[in-house]
Amino acid sequence: MKLKNRIYKSILMTGLFAMLISTATAQFQQNPIISPEIRDDGSITFRIMAPAADTVQISGNWMAGWGASEVLTKNAEGLWEITINDLKPDYYNYSYRVDGVRTTDPSNPWVIRDVRNTFSAFILPGEESQMLSLNSGKQGTLHEVWYPSTTLDFEQRRMKVYLPPGYEDSSGSYPVLYLLHGGGGDEEAWTELGLANRILDNLINAGKANPMIVVMTNGNPNQKSTWHVNPGHEPPRQTESVNPMANIQFEHSLVHDVIPFIESRYRVLSGKENRAVTGLSMGGWQTQQLALAFPEVFDYYGVMSMGLIRASQFGMDAEEHLERTRQNLRNLQETGYKLYWVACGTDDFLFDSVIHFREVLDDLGFDYVYRETGGGHTWDIWRQYLSEFAPMLFR
Amino acid sequence: MKLKNRIYKSILMTGLFAMLISTATAQFQQNPIISPEIRDDGSITFRIMAPAADTVQISGNWMAGWGASEVLTKNAEGLWEITINDLKPDYYNYSYRVDGVRTTDPSNPWVIRDVRNTFSAFILPGEESQMLSLNSGKQGTLHEVWYPSTTLDFEQRRMKVYLPPGYEDSSGSYPVLYLLHGGGGDEEAWTELGLANRILDNLINAGKANPMIVVMTNGNPNQKSTWHVNPGHEPPRQTESVNPMANIQFEHSLVHDVIPFIESRYRVLSGKENRAVTGLSMGGWQTQQLALAFPEVFDYYGVMSMGLIRASQFGMDAEEHLERTRQNLRNLQETGYKLYWVACGTDDFLFDSVIHFREVLDDLGFDYVYRETGGGHTWDIWRQYLSEFAPMLFR
Repeated sequence: MKLKNRIYKSILMTGLFAMLISTATAQFQQNPIISPEIRDDGSITFRIMAPAADTVQISGNWMAGWGASEVLTKNAEGLWEITINDLKPDYYNYSYRVDGVRTTDPSNPWVIRDVRNTFSAFILPGEESQMLSLNSGKQGTLHEVWYPSTTLDFEQRRMKVYLPPGYEDSSGSYPVLYLLHGGGGDEEAWTELGLANRILDNLINAGKANPMIVVMTNGNPNQKSTWHVNPGHEPPRQTESVNPMANIQFEHSLVHDVIPFIESRYRVLSGKENRAVTGLSMGGWQTQQLALAFPEVFDYYGVMSMGLIRASQFGMDAEEHLERTRQNLRNLQETGYKLYWVACGTDDFLFDSVIHFREVLDDLGFDYVYRETGGGHTWDIWRQYLSEFAPMLFR
Repeated sequence: MKLKNRIYKSILMTGLFAMLISTATAQFQQNPIISPEIRDDGSITFRIMAPAADTVQISGNWMAGWGASEVLTKNAEGLWEITINDLKPDYYNYSYRVDGVRTTDPSNPWVIRDVRNTFSAFILPGEESQMLSLNSGKQGTLHEVWYPSTTLDFEQRRMKVYLPPGYEDSSGSYPVLYLLHGGGGDEEAWTELGLANRILDNLINAGKANPMIVVMTNGNPNQKSTWHVNPGHEPPRQTESVNPMANIQFEHSLVHDVIPFIESRYRVLSGKENRAVTGLSMGGWQTQQLALAFPEVFDYYGVMSMGLIRASQFGMDAEEHLERTRQNLRNLQETGYKLYWVACGTDDFLFDSVIHFREVLDDLGFDYVYRETGGGHTWDIWRQYLSEFAPMLFR
């Protein structure tokens, strides 16, 4: 093809493509603002065009303290900008405030949800974030599955099921990790915020964890699914979403509905030596309750960022509740288990509850592994805990 | 339990729950703004708090014309508000402009992505949106799957696979619909914007469509997956994302990589009588190309919102390209097929291309079904087309 023809073709194609994208999907952004701009040296520039604004702030989950923010600088065109350095490679989220109005970054199409708020997201590439990234090698499969829950009186409830790389190409059976979210979360939390499937892919492909199925349920017994799947269904309310901590409805449904469903639908190794459960915060509480109420079901427990909440906080008789807990722990000691792992960050607002929990465990001579880290009650810590807990399972 | 105790317990629990949700997940919104507020009479109020703003506009996909907007009204507290009526029950999205800065609704946690922009979403419940809603009855399963593509030189590419209700409980095999997105879209478009799995669940449960597997690939041959799965990978650019229309790389990979993978991984009925393909816009073009290049693969074709683009727009020789198209159509006539369906809205900017396409088809005496609707190049129309096309398949 002659050069002139090639140029002509290129112009025509560009015209058609622009027409199809901009008109057809009516989505193409007119402005060329790139945000966040992530450079090879790890510096990141955030931008937003807001000529009429008087102040623009950014709040990022790398900043210390909830509500912390930094101020952007405006140029002559009304483009606001800030560059940050020295972030550790990880998975981050942020939002802007433009004259006090909270907004995600209009130039960044990657938006995630945490409870009721949405954030713009990015991964800063680097060695420390390799574990969260899509790497070469086979990837696992993620299922969005509906199952019946007679315990919770739902014809169907939604969960996510991760199958390890190679599951579909083998005829073998696999052990199962039940992975629980925290208060306000739902069945989407561990994949969207925790990148659990990516972490497991990388651990398994590196030979650091045994291949396993991971089941991520919705821990709120009043919910059929994350609310937006069901139109007209209200977002979870404060009083609804953490109620489960005080009863053990969810724990019953996990044992009586979820596990039998998983073990009939998938190729699963049964028996407690092939079952693990871990969860963060509310899910850590539920993990504790599962250990106490169903000592014969799991051999591996991971309690993340949750200790023993003083029973009076549930309005129970503190002495009576503590005595019942001790009784159940002795029962679990007799039944036996392979790993009881307790992990917490020293900046966690629940750190004191973990100290209290350990006092009770130590007093009983209860066998457990304690993992203390820095950090608080945040997803970077829980991703780290998952990447440490999974390799210890099913050995 | 005495009333006093019950109240005491309730206060303590509320305190703990608030602590866990607000501190633990650090997400709870302080303000009680409800937006959108959807009432039983179908009226909808949108709200945003922006005391410092001079103008707030809303753009909704129910408004006529791209870029159309309406102005909200501010009250004494700085809360902006607008109420709309007479919307047809459907799945909608919208965004605000606050003093010119585009933002999603900070009170609405349901955010969706279309190409590079994010929007707040809601479903207005009602008879017309029943087909898009979670109803009683068994739901299908949605898989996020990685497969190898030697044709496109990717070790792995991502796709979504829908399995109909009952698939896992039966031992039967199923026919497959290959469902293609448009320019700028990716493997998430048909579930996130098209609600394809919900539509199929409802059609199948109502006995209106035969149970079938639905495969939703990424139609951009340069992409491994929707870009945010792969950190450091840039969002799709204009010139990259629609390139596939000019070569038929994607079509080759569908036939040589995707179909064999699906037929080996799932319980699938093979043979062209058990394969259908449909797509919108760019996916409609790809559907046409599949019919012309691989007449022996599918028995059902659905071309949505795409006609015969005058070949000069691809920089090809118009006469030569038209003659090759006619030749291939005659070839398809000889090979045979069960359904060739062409659908377009009269307001579609590609409507003229469909008129041109029909002239060519009619001239050849080519057997096809033409479905003309109102509406333009938008997802409400494509959801409608899917709900009309799927019931005609595999009869």
